[in-house]
Amino acid sequence: MVFKVGLLGLGTVGTGTAKILLDATQRHPLLQTLEIHRVGVRSLDKPRAVDLPETCLTNDLEAIETDPDIDIEVEVMGGLEPARSLILEAIEDGKHVVTANKAVISRYGNEIAEAAKKAGVYVLYEAAVGGGIPIIQPLQQALGVNRLETVTGIINGTTNYILTRMQSEGGDFEPILADAQALGYAEADPTADVDGLDAADKIAILASIAFGGKIRREDVFTEGIRHVSAADVDYAETLGFVIKLLAIAKRNPPNSDTNDTNDTIQLRVHPTLVPLDHPLANVNGVNNAVLVEGDPIGQVMLYGPGAGEGPTASAIVSDIMTIAATLHMESPAEEKLPNPLLSNAYSDYKTISPMEQLESRFYLRLMVKDQPGVIGHLGEIFGNHNLSLESIVQIGLQENLAGLVIVTHEVKEGEFQKAISALKESADVDSIASVLRVLG
Amino acid sequence: MVFKVGLLGLGTVGTGTAKILLDATQRHPLLQTLEIHRVGVRSLDKPRAVDLPETCLTNDLEAIETDPDIDIEVEVMGGLEPARSLILEAIEDGKHVVTANKAVISRYGNEIAEAAKKAGVYVLYEAAVGGGIPIIQPLQQALGVNRLETVTGIINGTTNYILTRMQSEGGDFEPILADAQALGYAEADPTADVDGLDAADKIAILASIAFGGKIRREDVFTEGIRHVSAADVDYAETLGFVIKLLAIAKRNPPNSDTNDTNDTIQLRVHPTLVPLDHPLANVNGVNNAVLVEGDPIGQVMLYGPGAGEGPTASAIVSDIMTIAATLHMESPAEEKLPNPLLSNAYSDYKTISPMEQLESRFYLRLMVKDQPGVIGHLGEIFGNHNLSLESIVQIGLQENLAGLVIVTHEVKEGEFQKAISALKESADVDSIASVLRVLG
Repeated sequence: MVFKVGLLGLGTVGTGTAKILLDATQRHPLLQTLEIHRVGVRSLDKPRAVDLPETCLTNDLEAIETDPDIDIEVEVMGGLEPARSLILEAIEDGKHVVTANKAVISRYGNEIAEAAKKAGVYVLYEAAVGGGIPIIQPLQQALGVNRLETVTGIINGTTNYILTRMQSEGGDFEPILADAQALGYAEADPTADVDGLDAADKIAILASIAFGGKIRREDVFTEGIRHVSAADVDYAETLGFVIKLLAIAKRNPPNSDTNDTNDTIQLRVHPTLVPLDHPLANVNGVNNAVLVEGDPIGQVMLYGPGAGEGPTASAIVSDIMTIAATLHMESPAEEKLPNPLLSNAYSDYKTISPMEQLESRFYLRLMVKDQPGVIGHLGEIFGNHNLSLESIVQIGLQENLAGLVIVTHEVKEGEFQKAISALKESADVDSIASVLRVLG
Repeated sequence: MVFKVGLLGLGTVGTGTAKILLDATQRHPLLQTLEIHRVGVRSLDKPRAVDLPETCLTNDLEAIETDPDIDIEVEVMGGLEPARSLILEAIEDGKHVVTANKAVISRYGNEIAEAAKKAGVYVLYEAAVGGGIPIIQPLQQALGVNRLETVTGIINGTTNYILTRMQSEGGDFEPILADAQALGYAEADPTADVDGLDAADKIAILASIAFGGKIRREDVFTEGIRHVSAADVDYAETLGFVIKLLAIAKRNPPNSDTNDTNDTIQLRVHPTLVPLDHPLANVNGVNNAVLVEGDPIGQVMLYGPGAGEGPTASAIVSDIMTIAATLHMESPAEEKLPNPLLSNAYSDYKTISPMEQLESRFYLRLMVKDQPGVIGHLGEIFGNHNLSLESIVQIGLQENLAGLVIVTHEVKEGEFQKAISALKESADVDSIASVLRVLG
């Protein structure tokens, strides 16, 4: 039995996908049952890095949707539209779909999963998070037998590249971003990466699977790395931390006061001080990693290249193969029963805790008047907000101001923000230079 | 639909498995379709850490084999016999099997896979390698679309614990082994762990899946860590390495001289100098990690707890769930078609290269006469065997002897061993203190 693949897009990822499918030697034998049938492209004349029969190429994308010979459609165009509509049309036409489109899945994943359930087809998107790293499938299958507690990821290669260079060179954000753009590690418009939007798309997808519910994309608290300074990277290191852009999805512990087991979660992306001996602290450059914590497994980390032609294509083709394996099991006559491990149609939305209620440690850098009694006054302000300090370090004097770096114990974000407001109003405080969250 | 599980063994892993199955809340919803039907134990009176109905327990293991109500049998007794026979009988009786038994699978995996194929049942063994880390399934499925080149693992927790402590404390092997035994990290008879036999079982299993062929367990070259000394750990660190017990399976590159693409592999377990910036260098304590390299994915690493009740049970239950998912897809009337991603029945044996033909870098510590011209003489010996050196460091004098630590460039193991023989015969050389392989 041979299954026919339609490819929507022949850019970097599409090309990588075609390369694997066209050369199955020494790969999983199931790949030999897959055939590229049609490829939709914008321009038919462009030179291509893969050798496809010319009759294969078309710029009529709708023709791929409606081609009855195609079993599995692969969407690797990117962007919200027409990608979303093409995916939905393919599903309605009874085709299985594989996509790498995190923007579409994080926003329209529920709509797409419902449509797929109704049409009795599969929609898989391993490539949407973590490039080549197998993460969606393990989270849903092997790791899914655990009571998952936390999914913590470094899932944006561009920001990790920038932060790694800031760390190793002691440089500031802006010039390193400019260099990363020149080298092709960051886009001309870097917003989606450096403001944390791409990581937010991805953690919304992971949270949905890890905690088995719908996620509203806009519920993800998102703070990027533009405000991270060379000074903070340096002080963090002195204190035993590296700064990483973490995407965190966490099940709230049951509330013992109210006996409330309402199964709410936390969901956020922000630069974070990570202790140097933490497994995520050594994930450098464009690499990605996802740390999964659960009961009874403990900690498992999946690490690898988070983007690029080869890794992303590997994930795309693994999804195509998973669908093909399922199709091989079906005798055509019978009523089809879907594989319950490959479905993500959830009925309920997850409740996301507001940031004010989250407990976290904080890193705080501020400039205060260099005069006797200041530390005492600050201590009073912190005490008034039940905020206890783990460390307080003076980092130098300039004119009549002293710099202080403070790491707090765990405190509710809301309380901490009130303390910050009080600090800002204090006559002893000149300015709050930076505030960052600390892991663990 | 509910599927019934028979458990052979209620030790650590069996208990952990029962705990997950008895408490499905907040885990994958498919777990609610699984039920522990019978549990085979040695003694019926022993107090148990899980609350099972008494009627569930039996010491008649054969009765579990032949119980027609049981769909999936879980073998967590360990040891070669009666485990192997019970697995084969269960298969013959039409039951699916899940096992954590690396000794049985590495030795009798082919026999078992053949029997399973014939009987139309699944035999899964995610827990046999890497404890809770998902590695068998990703290797066979998501990563299997790549042309896999290398699988390199730290897959024995006991030896990694000992080597990590030797590294951090500067201690020697014997006292740290004794302490590890006292703390329960090493068995009273530590042979299987410290001599590399357990790691060899596991890499034989991984190699079979990664390269799609049968493996003869006795083909795995195996060298343990008893001879690794505190001095070598120390010198390795000075040179920028840590010493790890690596299990390596590697596809040989095609021979460009002979146009030979005969698809042979390397397969070995030995203590290895790992560069400090290598992803495996930071895997410490009882943790395991497997680094998979392939085309086009590049490097992916899967990291986590390699043993213990919870992690191993997580892997066992994930296999049970995978089988249950497949059973949910079958309408009982039809002819059953197996899921091709869950079968490991290979037809051919892989050819394993003899160690002499492997190219590797080497670390060599030796004591030489402290007199002029010695380095020149050694250089001649190395030159005669086409052995070029990366570094040579004098490490101190004692009486009239000088210590030297040498790291070579890549050389065929056979040539290197000849050079060692020549060194031993040289009047300038007092003794060869140690020889270790160097990664990459």
